[in-house]
Amino acid sequence: MDHSARNPDFEAVVQASFARQSFMTTLGARLLSVRPGEVRIGYARKDTLLQQHGFIHAGAGTSIVDSACGYAALSLAAPSVEVLTIEFKINFLKPADGSEFEAVGRVIRAGKSIAVCEGELGQRGSDLPIARMQATMMLIAAA
Amino acid sequence: MDHSARNPDFEAVVQASFARQSFMTTLGARLLSVRPGEVRIGYARKDTLLQQHGFIHAGAGTSIVDSACGYAALSLAAPSVEVLTIEFKINFLKPADGSEFEAVGRVIRAGKSIAVCEGELGQRGSDLPIARMQATMMLIAAA
Amino acid sequence: MDHSARNPDFEAVVQASFARQSFMTTLGARLLSVRPGEVRIGYARKDTLLQQHGFIHAGAGTSIVDSACGYAALSLAAPSVEVLTIEFKINFLKPADGSEFEAVGRVIRAGKSIAVCEGELGQRGSDLPIARMQATMMLIAAA
Amino acid sequence: MDHSARNPDFEAVVQASFARQSFMTTLGARLLSVRPGEVRIGYARKDTLLQQHGFIHAGAGTSIVDSACGYAALSLAAPSVEVLTIEFKINFLKPADGSEFEAVGRVIRAGKSIAVCEGELGQRGSDLPIARMQATMMLIAAA
Repeated sequence: MDHSARNPDFEAVVQASFARQSFMTTLGARLLSVRPGEVRIGYARKDTLLQQHGFIHAGAGTSIVDSACGYAALSLAAPSVEVLTIEFKINFLKPADGSEFEAVGRVIRAGKSIAVCEGELGQRGSDLPIARMQATMMLIAAA
Repeated sequence: MDHSARNPDFEAVVQASFARQSFMTTLGARLLSVRPGEVRIGYARKDTLLQQHGFIHAGAGTSIVDSACGYAALSLAAPSVEVLTIEFKINFLKPADGSEFEAVGRVIRAGKSIAVCEGELGQRGSDLPIARMQATMMLIAAA
Repeated sequence: MDHSARNPDFEAVVQASFARQSFMTTLGARLLSVRPGEVRIGYARKDTLLQQHGFIHAGAGTSIVDSACGYAALSLAAPSVEVLTIEFKINFLKPADGSEFEAVGRVIRAGKSIAVCEGELGQRGSDLPIARMQATMMLIAAA
Repeated sequence: MDHSARNPDFEAVVQASFARQSFMTTLGARLLSVRPGEVRIGYARKDTLLQQHGFIHAGAGTSIVDSACGYAALSLAAPSVEVLTIEFKINFLKPADGSEFEAVGRVIRAGKSIAVCEGELGQRGSDLPIARMQATMMLIAAA
């Protein structure tokens, strides 16, 4: 990534892209903060997002922290760049038995065509993360 | 896993657990088949599941193929066992630009306390998978 | 990857690159076969490669199956392309308690700049794989 | 993990296990420090460990950081426990073009039967990590 070419409007770019994702609305996800290389998204337990034991489904948090990682990469990119998830790996560390959650995505390596990110899911009332992600993003010229 | 102890009612067990997951209903996921060590789940593009370019969000498919892997492990387990996802890794291989999708989860190693699974996402009209997962499941005594 | 541009001398290219890796010699790795999109490498238990219980170290097999995946990607590439491992994930499925081993790497998705591969480690006398890898490779113009 | 039962001799246990690994000797790996939940191992570029471009092979560092993660988990375990790597994922962030390297493994979640660790590879003269690992370890009763 040519950091000199970083989009000065990165926050608006991330907000506009986030708003176009109907799945984020379905998940009740709210963009909390967009800083260069770090994005936070909040979400809450909802009756429509549960797994078989009544906790929020791990897939909901996974989808949201993947988005946080992707937007963290986008926040460092030039104006004409889009970000695609190539792959990620996520470990679930403890039960997501809370009601308010926060996902954070951070860029740990910003390359020209690849960004590597770490993501974390936490829940209110606990200092311990509930999940940890390591993700690889591809930067491509916008269509 | 003690295969001699495998639950003869594994199909009903998987169906009942799947039906309790409100998130699978939200995603429009339908259990297609449950065989020992292999589970298939279908889903479709819906207006509530989209990412910013109008394709189905990768997180929806990820959540569903994780479920397929977990239920594949459960299909081989003893009656009193539950399955938890410890971790997974998923590669996105091509755009999910179709409208009908299928997730398959298969057990590739069934141990006493750990099952390792592979998952695949496909879309109607394409022979190529759109995503490939490798997942680690823990088998625990039901509470 | 532009398959029409695939290097007709792919086998010689892989052999020459493999021969330049002193680490493969240290590990006793032997290139067994190079086919388009699939490479096999053999190795054996040696006193210099052991972990604390006297089995061959998982890192030896991991290094070799990563090479098999990388060369599988290279076997499909144009003459002027090099392959770098971006990342991989590997599950260890059973103890590597044998004495003769084989790694196979296969391309499951050959893109223009990214190839996704699956790798497997097996041991003589067992039908079950001892490890399974999923790897992401980057294709770059040779320096 | 029952932390009250943590082995008071954890440092000696790790040192003895490390010394039994002939592969660590082959790689020239030296145990630098053992603290509860964090282990550091040093290694250097050697003519026997190279890939085709003359840099140290990524598999050497991968093997060493996997060991650092496993020993970090062992450092928190009860006396009668052994640690097995279930799986790991590693991203390579930049070329390992240095000559002196350090691997650190840290426990990020210590459970009763599973420990999740993060690992990092660095090289002297650079603040940026050259690789990042996320690993899952199983704790089992020693044979």
